[in-house]
Amino acid sequence: MITFETRPDAYHHWKLTFDGPVATLSMDVREDAGLSSDYRLKLNSYDLAVDIELADALQRLRFEHPEVHAVIVTSLKERIFCAGANIMMLRGSSHGAKVNFCKFTNETRLAMEDASAHSGLKFLAALNGICAGGGYELALACDEILLVDDGNSAVSLPEAPLLGVLPGTGGLTRLVDKRRVRRDLADFFSTLVEGVKGKRAVEWRLVDAVAPRSRFKDGVQARARELAAASDRPASGPGITLKPLNPTVTDAAVTYSAVTLALHRDKRTADLTVHAPAGPQPATPEAMLAAGDQFWALRAFRELDDALLRLRVNELEVGTVVIRAEGDRDAVLAVDRTLVAHQSHWLVREIIHHMKRTLKRLDLTARSFFAFIEPGSAFAGSLFELALAADRSYMFHDDQEENVVALSPMNGRLRAEGASASPAEARRDRMRAEAGPLLMSNGLTRLQTRFLDRPETIAGLLAHDGPFNAGDAEDAGLVTFAPDEIDWDDEVRVAVEARAAFSPDAMTGLEANLRFAGPETMETKIFGRLTAWQNWIFQRPNAVGAKGALQSYGQQGRPEFDWKRT
Amino acid sequence: MITFETRPDAYHHWKLTFDGPVATLSMDVREDAGLSSDYRLKLNSYDLAVDIELADALQRLRFEHPEVHAVIVTSLKERIFCAGANIMMLRGSSHGAKVNFCKFTNETRLAMEDASAHSGLKFLAALNGICAGGGYELALACDEILLVDDGNSAVSLPEAPLLGVLPGTGGLTRLVDKRRVRRDLADFFSTLVEGVKGKRAVEWRLVDAVAPRSRFKDGVQARARELAAASDRPASGPGITLKPLNPTVTDAAVTYSAVTLALHRDKRTADLTVHAPAGPQPATPEAMLAAGDQFWALRAFRELDDALLRLRVNELEVGTVVIRAEGDRDAVLAVDRTLVAHQSHWLVREIIHHMKRTLKRLDLTARSFFAFIEPGSAFAGSLFELALAADRSYMFHDDQEENVVALSPMNGRLRAEGASASPAEARRDRMRAEAGPLLMSNGLTRLQTRFLDRPETIAGLLAHDGPFNAGDAEDAGLVTFAPDEIDWDDEVRVAVEARAAFSPDAMTGLEANLRFAGPETMETKIFGRLTAWQNWIFQRPNAVGAKGALQSYGQQGRPEFDWKRT
Repeated sequence: MITFETRPDAYHHWKLTFDGPVATLSMDVREDAGLSSDYRLKLNSYDLAVDIELADALQRLRFEHPEVHAVIVTSLKERIFCAGANIMMLRGSSHGAKVNFCKFTNETRLAMEDASAHSGLKFLAALNGICAGGGYELALACDEILLVDDGNSAVSLPEAPLLGVLPGTGGLTRLVDKRRVRRDLADFFSTLVEGVKGKRAVEWRLVDAVAPRSRFKDGVQARARELAAASDRPASGPGITLKPLNPTVTDAAVTYSAVTLALHRDKRTADLTVHAPAGPQPATPEAMLAAGDQFWALRAFRELDDALLRLRVNELEVGTVVIRAEGDRDAVLAVDRTLVAHQSHWLVREIIHHMKRTLKRLDLTARSFFAFIEPGSAFAGSLFELALAADRSYMFHDDQEENVVALSPMNGRLRAEGASASPAEARRDRMRAEAGPLLMSNGLTRLQTRFLDRPETIAGLLAHDGPFNAGDAEDAGLVTFAPDEIDWDDEVRVAVEARAAFSPDAMTGLEANLRFAGPETMETKIFGRLTAWQNWIFQRPNAVGAKGALQSYGQQGRPEFDWKRT
Repeated sequence: MITFETRPDAYHHWKLTFDGPVATLSMDVREDAGLSSDYRLKLNSYDLAVDIELADALQRLRFEHPEVHAVIVTSLKERIFCAGANIMMLRGSSHGAKVNFCKFTNETRLAMEDASAHSGLKFLAALNGICAGGGYELALACDEILLVDDGNSAVSLPEAPLLGVLPGTGGLTRLVDKRRVRRDLADFFSTLVEGVKGKRAVEWRLVDAVAPRSRFKDGVQARARELAAASDRPASGPGITLKPLNPTVTDAAVTYSAVTLALHRDKRTADLTVHAPAGPQPATPEAMLAAGDQFWALRAFRELDDALLRLRVNELEVGTVVIRAEGDRDAVLAVDRTLVAHQSHWLVREIIHHMKRTLKRLDLTARSFFAFIEPGSAFAGSLFELALAADRSYMFHDDQEENVVALSPMNGRLRAEGASASPAEARRDRMRAEAGPLLMSNGLTRLQTRFLDRPETIAGLLAHDGPFNAGDAEDAGLVTFAPDEIDWDDEVRVAVEARAAFSPDAMTGLEANLRFAGPETMETKIFGRLTAWQNWIFQRPNAVGAKGALQSYGQQGRPEFDWKRT
């Protein structure tokens, strides 16, 4: 069983050091501390264990170290920055393990860009030596890249020519879409095993600058200070501490304080339940600081994130997940209002973006999600995003109209078209809907993605006076189906059974195509186009067959290819 | 060997009839006239042979029938519109054949949308009966969908639940992105074998209207007349006739009048050469009408299109293609100027959009393309697009500076920022670059895609006084490399040999990710995200294994799945 929690003093592979507003995250991979003893992590190559620590460090920088404004990403190995994903690890991995590994590393690199874009935390890749494959992809996720100019150190993406696979962590997409490297130069570069160094690397936009070894360290420090100076993070802490989640793990369930993942492996299904806040919740940033990681909005979403990751890598056959939200709906709405009211505070900002990233993790999880909205449920505001993220939602249509869902400013914001507006005016369409903070990978809110056909209705939904009963929610398109008492049991049972009986691959492909309607972004390109092609290649004998390039790398003789172009 | 040329009087599967401004394209598939005798095309199911005729009909409607303003797409079978791609055909196809089949059918459906968007030719799907899978995807490519309401006829996408594969012809993308069907409804619909009919199909936006059988034919005719009335096509013909291309086909080459495809199968390479116009070319639309399909701009690009299709399906191991343009550069530029000057004429418009579609076919061809620009070459204007479409271009740097490339308004248009501007002013950046007519799938010109990093330079390039010699072209970024006489032979030889030695799958994935930088459109989503996932599924044992859903469909017992979710 793979777990995702760690802490800096338990890291094997990274050193996190602090110097005022600049932190340094140094890769120093311990060869014998990978997830498996089948391979050694030579030359700062990495496996999932290394990336789990990186993801942890990024979270802690955001929550525990608000005084850090810039991060230098470098290596403690001489003349080696990072050799990329470990080839022996990839070679020995099942197809599913390869796919899950790439997905997590992609999410982690996107989290760096998220921190830069939304959290004022800038990243400077200080490439002190060879930077190959996934090493360069890590650098590409940083805001700027400095490469030592020593006649030897180069950046490279040798995956295609050496291994017959793609750079799988966003490299191709970031080359042409983020750094806007010219496509023909990107083509040449991506087939060049030895990579590109020095002045040419700058000219081709592969790195931002080079410096001779004598001036490299000072140059890195100076540039990091400049990046830090432009940050809007607070001048000093304290931050809050992310303590262990300590779930209770049994064979049948992972149980956290606000989240439960109950497994029904015989049916290949799970129940994922998120509980609304119970008891008083902090109403000010100061109270949130005091509550720390115990504040529901942070704790519940950290638990949800952990549950999703465990589900992905440890429960491969559990393909259909029923999501429920339970508890006090009004408590969720109250937390949402507090968050939105104080969203300019650094901690509130971090909490909101963490919720956003967790919901994205759900969008990107290759499992079918059905939301069941039953009496007593708490699908409101930020928790209603779970229903919007689900592939379908079923809402029990009770005669008493007590089963309701509700929206909050976390689902989308209203802005008055004129000088001011009352809720009544808003309901007369004088308000304009704006994106809320919980954006999907496609840059839209889940309401915007859902109502691509009629964006003008979103303002009316957000201005709706109070919650929606099942009939209203169905009419408004907020839920998929609203069966009544007579139909409910059969309908939801059949839906889950049918889903769990379909080809798992067809469902993965279906969901990957239907969940992300609307605009594409670099992020959706990475998870759509790039990942899908990589997964295809990861199935092809030319890569993974006995004589394929990935399987035979480092062995005598050349790979043998089926030359047919597809 | 598969060929792509046909003509209406040779169609086996479609009837094309005319009634003033409305044509009717009726599917009436002959069961025994597929590409192979291994399967029978029952229930208006189709294979590549059926789609080749559809593609031909669409071309002829555009060029031969300018008086047609709307097309009814329907079926001559009782109570069956179309059952989609033939399952036995898919089952018996190699992976490569499946992929090429889906690519061609996708291009054909996109050509329908291209005709609607750019050519005033509107399509009305008249679903007279069952419309399943690829049948519904064909309907989705039309502007409007009318479904007969007889209690039985439904639209459906049963691929995922029945066959364990995706609807592979854009269905999922068009559902959520073109028709903006709500994603949860799309999810439900795409898992529903029996599909959706009647009022619900309208409510869910799956079709535009339904009509009882008694009113169906009249309703279709009336709506088709309305669509026709809004067209900007000419009121009457004549059009021009697309005569057979009659290439000379030997074992080593396919030779047309202006295009040669020379095959070097032992090296897995080919030389694709396009010749510039020779002799006088028409200078007015009237002269073009008189020249008909012999006008170079149409003939050369029809030949290029045919050569690309033959390469794709008949020369599977030829992975690397060297493109050359030869002949009189100024003649190309003169044709370009004529085309742009008269682009509002219906025939000129058709010719330009045909050039555009052919170049898109090149972008979407899974082969590596290197352009070799050598002395005497004619890489100018519309033919320079071949170099821009190539993965790389190599330009011979001659001392005499006689080897040049040139741009024309076909590569991009200049618009004066002020009231008027001279070329000299344009060179001082008073001009703004606009998209030219030869757009890629991503909605940008190839120059815009190439210079994503510095779009402001495009105006200067377009305003450049005369052609670019090799040094200038390299400096401007118009070509990838410009080796001189000393380096040329070795450099281009090594480049081709190295390319031809890489994993064909890795090159396909690499190119699919690097060629389409910048914005994504429904079209790029279909070829990127959707196709890549489908290709992945087409490799998976859950679909194509002995007990996979596609292989075992129609046989006793249920498919057996590896339940692991990926």
